[in-house]
Amino acid sequence: MSKSKASEPNVVFIGSKTVMSYVLACITQLNEGNQDLILKARGRAISRAVDTAEIIRHRFVTDAQIKKIEISTEKIERREGGTANVSAIEITISKKK
Amino acid sequence: MSKSKASEPNVVFIGSKTVMSYVLACITQLNEGNQDLILKARGRAISRAVDTAEIIRHRFVTDAQIKKIEISTEKIERREGGTANVSAIEITISKKK
Repeated sequence: MSKSKASEPNVVFIGSKTVMSYVLACITQLNEGNQDLILKARGRAISRAVDTAEIIRHRFVTDAQIKKIEISTEKIERREGGTANVSAIEITISKKK
Repeated sequence: MSKSKASEPNVVFIGSKTVMSYVLACITQLNEGNQDLILKARGRAISRAVDTAEIIRHRFVTDAQIKKIEISTEKIERREGGTANVSAIEITISKKK
């Protein structure tokens, strides 16, 4: 039942806050010993996720590298009924060993 | 001197037009027999590039696949002098053989 926490990749959801607040969240995760970190974003937040990843690896965690980038389409429920398609991105950041 | 046109991957720069105008540009390129197509975008247009790629492969060119996604940081000249960093994305779309 109890799964080792280190084996689950940690996820940071990128929304509409400032880039720096996500950079800080990611650095905290990486410094806690998590080797892999996944940034997830949808719609307009996608460019913010890319900003976050770039700032982390160039400025703060220089031993981090982009391991994988995937894009997809997600269906979201519209408030007024029906569904809409929205693009999503997943950026996996990994600390070099 | 004369390089075969088919060997150069074609590039579509994603800017501030509508997603559908870029989708159309990409479909045209792919139908001209170009097997690889690179979508390039910077800053806020990054999410539009992801939208474009997703719409192409899910709706219009279903034998197309995402071959590679790269993110980077580019330096741009500020109008008022100095430089600013901006994130960039390159999405390579490839038609399945």
